[in-house]
Amino acid sequence: MDENLVLKEKREIEAREDSDKTIDPANLEMFEVARKAGVETAFDRLLRQEPKCPYCYTGVSCRNCAMGPCRITARADRGVCGATADVMVARGLLRNTVAGTASHVDHARHVAIALLQAARGEAPYTIRDEPKLRRIASALGIEGADTMPVMELAERVALLALEEIGAAHANGGRWLRMHATQERLETWSRLGVLPEGGMLPVLEGMHRTSMGNDADAVNLILGCIKAGIADGFYGLHLSTDLQDVLFGTPKPVFSRAGMGVLEEEYVNIACHGHVPVLSEKIVEAAEALQEEAKKAGAKGINVVGICCTGNEILERLGIPAVGNELNSELVIATGALDAVVVDYQCIFPALTEAAKCFHTKIITTAPIVKLPDAEHVEFDERRADEVAREIVMRAIENFRRRDPGKVHIPGFSTEVLAGFSVEALLEVLSKLSPSDPLAPLVDSIAKGDVKGAVAIVGCSNPRVPHDLMHVELAKELIRRDILVIATGCAAHAHAKAGLMQPAGYRMAGSRLQGVLKALGEAAGLEALPPVLHFGSCVDNSRINQLLKALAEKLGVAIKDLPVAASAPEYNTEKALSIGTWAVALGVTTHVNPLPRVAGSQLVTELLTDKAEELLGAKFIHSSDPKESADMLEEVILEKRRRLGLPV
Amino acid sequence: MDENLVLKEKREIEAREDSDKTIDPANLEMFEVARKAGVETAFDRLLRQEPKCPYCYTGVSCRNCAMGPCRITARADRGVCGATADVMVARGLLRNTVAGTASHVDHARHVAIALLQAARGEAPYTIRDEPKLRRIASALGIEGADTMPVMELAERVALLALEEIGAAHANGGRWLRMHATQERLETWSRLGVLPEGGMLPVLEGMHRTSMGNDADAVNLILGCIKAGIADGFYGLHLSTDLQDVLFGTPKPVFSRAGMGVLEEEYVNIACHGHVPVLSEKIVEAAEALQEEAKKAGAKGINVVGICCTGNEILERLGIPAVGNELNSELVIATGALDAVVVDYQCIFPALTEAAKCFHTKIITTAPIVKLPDAEHVEFDERRADEVAREIVMRAIENFRRRDPGKVHIPGFSTEVLAGFSVEALLEVLSKLSPSDPLAPLVDSIAKGDVKGAVAIVGCSNPRVPHDLMHVELAKELIRRDILVIATGCAAHAHAKAGLMQPAGYRMAGSRLQGVLKALGEAAGLEALPPVLHFGSCVDNSRINQLLKALAEKLGVAIKDLPVAASAPEYNTEKALSIGTWAVALGVTTHVNPLPRVAGSQLVTELLTDKAEELLGAKFIHSSDPKESADMLEEVILEKRRRLGLPV
Repeated sequence: MDENLVLKEKREIEAREDSDKTIDPANLEMFEVARKAGVETAFDRLLRQEPKCPYCYTGVSCRNCAMGPCRITARADRGVCGATADVMVARGLLRNTVAGTASHVDHARHVAIALLQAARGEAPYTIRDEPKLRRIASALGIEGADTMPVMELAERVALLALEEIGAAHANGGRWLRMHATQERLETWSRLGVLPEGGMLPVLEGMHRTSMGNDADAVNLILGCIKAGIADGFYGLHLSTDLQDVLFGTPKPVFSRAGMGVLEEEYVNIACHGHVPVLSEKIVEAAEALQEEAKKAGAKGINVVGICCTGNEILERLGIPAVGNELNSELVIATGALDAVVVDYQCIFPALTEAAKCFHTKIITTAPIVKLPDAEHVEFDERRADEVAREIVMRAIENFRRRDPGKVHIPGFSTEVLAGFSVEALLEVLSKLSPSDPLAPLVDSIAKGDVKGAVAIVGCSNPRVPHDLMHVELAKELIRRDILVIATGCAAHAHAKAGLMQPAGYRMAGSRLQGVLKALGEAAGLEALPPVLHFGSCVDNSRINQLLKALAEKLGVAIKDLPVAASAPEYNTEKALSIGTWAVALGVTTHVNPLPRVAGSQLVTELLTDKAEELLGAKFIHSSDPKESADMLEEVILEKRRRLGLPV
Repeated sequence: MDENLVLKEKREIEAREDSDKTIDPANLEMFEVARKAGVETAFDRLLRQEPKCPYCYTGVSCRNCAMGPCRITARADRGVCGATADVMVARGLLRNTVAGTASHVDHARHVAIALLQAARGEAPYTIRDEPKLRRIASALGIEGADTMPVMELAERVALLALEEIGAAHANGGRWLRMHATQERLETWSRLGVLPEGGMLPVLEGMHRTSMGNDADAVNLILGCIKAGIADGFYGLHLSTDLQDVLFGTPKPVFSRAGMGVLEEEYVNIACHGHVPVLSEKIVEAAEALQEEAKKAGAKGINVVGICCTGNEILERLGIPAVGNELNSELVIATGALDAVVVDYQCIFPALTEAAKCFHTKIITTAPIVKLPDAEHVEFDERRADEVAREIVMRAIENFRRRDPGKVHIPGFSTEVLAGFSVEALLEVLSKLSPSDPLAPLVDSIAKGDVKGAVAIVGCSNPRVPHDLMHVELAKELIRRDILVIATGCAAHAHAKAGLMQPAGYRMAGSRLQGVLKALGEAAGLEALPPVLHFGSCVDNSRINQLLKALAEKLGVAIKDLPVAASAPEYNTEKALSIGTWAVALGVTTHVNPLPRVAGSQLVTELLTDKAEELLGAKFIHSSDPKESADMLEEVILEKRRRLGLPV
């Protein structure tokens, strides 16, 4: 328990002016508008939470039984059951991690159900990427994957997905084996952290953290790693695979990012959440109902995306991205949104409070995500078209109630090139080297034109100046000839900052510039952007797909590649489970703010030091973009040295 | 947030003398011994936790994302995401509930795996109750249940169990349907709380409580109910069913309870935890190794049970019960325990600290339960005999290191009649009414000789004077002619207090006395005990089995029966999920101490009032045994009035 950490953060946060809180000019402009309209935001609520509880802040509190709540204090070195600070911190971290895993596995499960229903003709979805379905089926070892009728094959794959998610005892783990390298499978097996399926590590994690079970912090942290691995393969990969099958594998697509994508004279519908199963249908319905919008006096319907469902429809359909999580309340204050349609995850409960100041409808759709004061239109894949139409019609209807006097749309928006699936990237690379597409990338890395790569991912968080870490860290890295790949709310930040447009390549170091220019020209562009939009948070799977391909190409382990990751404004439990997966893969991962581990030196050392021995990677932390870049660059240089590459 | 609640509890706890802390004379005697030996207990650690954090105490804190930790204060009516007090309380309760469900479902999963391995000849277990296996298989709708070779049938049942535990989408829910009444299935379906399987409600519960998901407290509480139902059928019932198949359905058996069951001249091994898959084998190995113990200078081996694994081997094998959870540290201070073998759940991490003051070995066996400073002998069902033998040999070896000067065994132990499965109870009843065994019980209830029944269940908790609520509440109830059924640590308390011996019937009211005497005599006993030992916590399933039989016999719903439940010294998250199941079944349930809901009037009202409209039952709370008995009696009288029975 370190009260100083808490008081230091309080001082920092209270000292911030508006201009210190965000680097997004639209958000900055909207602060004033929101205040006038009486909209409270996460930035305001954070101030009222200061100072934070020092026990919960450092992880040394526990409420996992009714003998407590307990905390570690100067008087008490153990909880009532005997749990030490180490145990409390490790238990807390494991519960947070399994919640992240649960979120992604449940997401994957929904997509698998949609695929199953589509295959059975019960839900109105088609198979948009049949070759990918066949590749996946083949990699899963399904016989006849090349010749089976497509819907029959889709059913087989969906059923296998659901079976692996639900595995209650050791099974084939085919999804895991399809996407993991042999070296990692052996490492994880040795550590006893191979997950049996998607749900079981969640069950086991909740069991072992309940009172009177695991009290060995090291063992508990191994539970985190197991949950992280389950997230990666049964959550992220499974979601991406089946979403690509259903909705198509992304290809490079131009669009725009920033609040300026709202259109004053159109019905504006924002899709917010994570799963494209709903948002794809909203886009379809909006297209079909343009005339209805015109009847209501609008010029048409403008669908925009927030957060990860925004990334999903951006990367596949080119739908403009209005902002990330910390834009989600302020974009309502534009008064120009006729509906915000949400599925699940990262939906601030406060959205309905913001909406009360305007005509905006918040429409919830998931049975497990309801908000008091929102309208609920329950989504059911089988009635997807009907539900989407109903939602769009409500938005159109609501357009009539918009108060033009309250509309204030900031003018900022930026060009963004999204849609970098691995398949798409390989297609670009194959322009330079048709027979061996990875060769140009590998050569560039070997020579040092590309010093390495860092994935910048994760959320936004008002404790960190909004978008600042994402953007400044990326700028620092590309300047040092380190390629950046981004997903999630990080990608929104980079997009808004112009780092995802071809012209952005000029911000890179000269050697990286050359590579981006050569690759871009081969693809018919001015250049590749220096920060590649890899999609949503579940699309972090695509990063592993690329790393596995590179590692296998080079005949080394992923842990030996000159790569690293960063979640520099992380917020959700999902970010923790993804970050844990990254470290488990062998990718050293920077996180900020500091997770709730400061109360245990043992756990802190495990994660930031000993993990390296076990997994070849560890967590690192810094809240300064320059220092973070230094640390990440050093990780990359060390890997280059070990590989005998020039540094 | 109510600081007064916290300060009131602090004053109460600090004012307690030793004699106020427990009514178990052995514990009281051991306090002094423990202090001299330097053993710290949960009673001591509780004092050092006072005063408790008022935010966590009332549920208005949240650490489910890294924007926090947050709490509701005079300055802040919402967390950073916008979560209100209602949302924080409901989220916290759901996480606690799913942790309980996860524990029981994981327990059931282990038993199913043991059955599967036994059926396949991979693990050294036999089918001890083949008729029950066939009855279960038949009720599950397995064709050929009457004629299939037993091991083939066992494999089918085990695979079905694992499939239902892991169901990732809507399935048959056969385990649920086997044990639930039609009326409840319809009620739960209407409320949308029918669980699809055992793990999914845990996954869903963790998902929906993560930041940016469910923010509707009512919806979250429905999630608790769903998790509670999953616990009841895929946790408790599934465990009991398969344990009975593997180890035999309990029959009435005499044994003894209390610390006096330790034997100074024997190797004493305590089995602590929950799952009989290990402890059954320890008992077998101890029997086989008696001669080895004699070689080590002992008179033999004395296996005793703690907590629920203690109940499991008591009800099936007559193994003496040395105590419940709050005896577990003090029994180590007797200096007479050569080994404490633990599986999982309710194992205080502090046990190893107590053991350091003596020669006692703490031996952990589960991969998910390790304790620093314990010896770990990993249990694997396939090597069950070998592992059990290894553990018993370590205990024998350790006997040589026992310091006789440190041995202090309190003299208290009491006769206990355990083993009341429903099958056993029906056998007793059939002595009076062979063709219609339930008739005598139903008649007694109808006439009012048995006014009703209360299940007293759950843990011990140092916040509540140890055993006092269990025992005083039971005495109050039986005095009022209300039959008491007990499981778990409650049953240990009743056993130690003499309420589970035939002679205890004299403590009942005169009308209940008559019934106990008549039934007992028919069974060849002086009388039935006034508190019937129904087994371990997972054996709470047996209570539903009885209620379902009674409800179907009477043609009413369970919610209309003159019954209630109480967990008057609850501690674990499992107790919360079981209690929620009980309310979901239609059984009004008393809990003490107060769960962490005081920070939300909405949630408090839902649980203690509105639940009645939805489910025909609710939670009630009191910390006074007399007042609790009044409340429970009133529930029963009200049901009797509605049924038109004399009150």
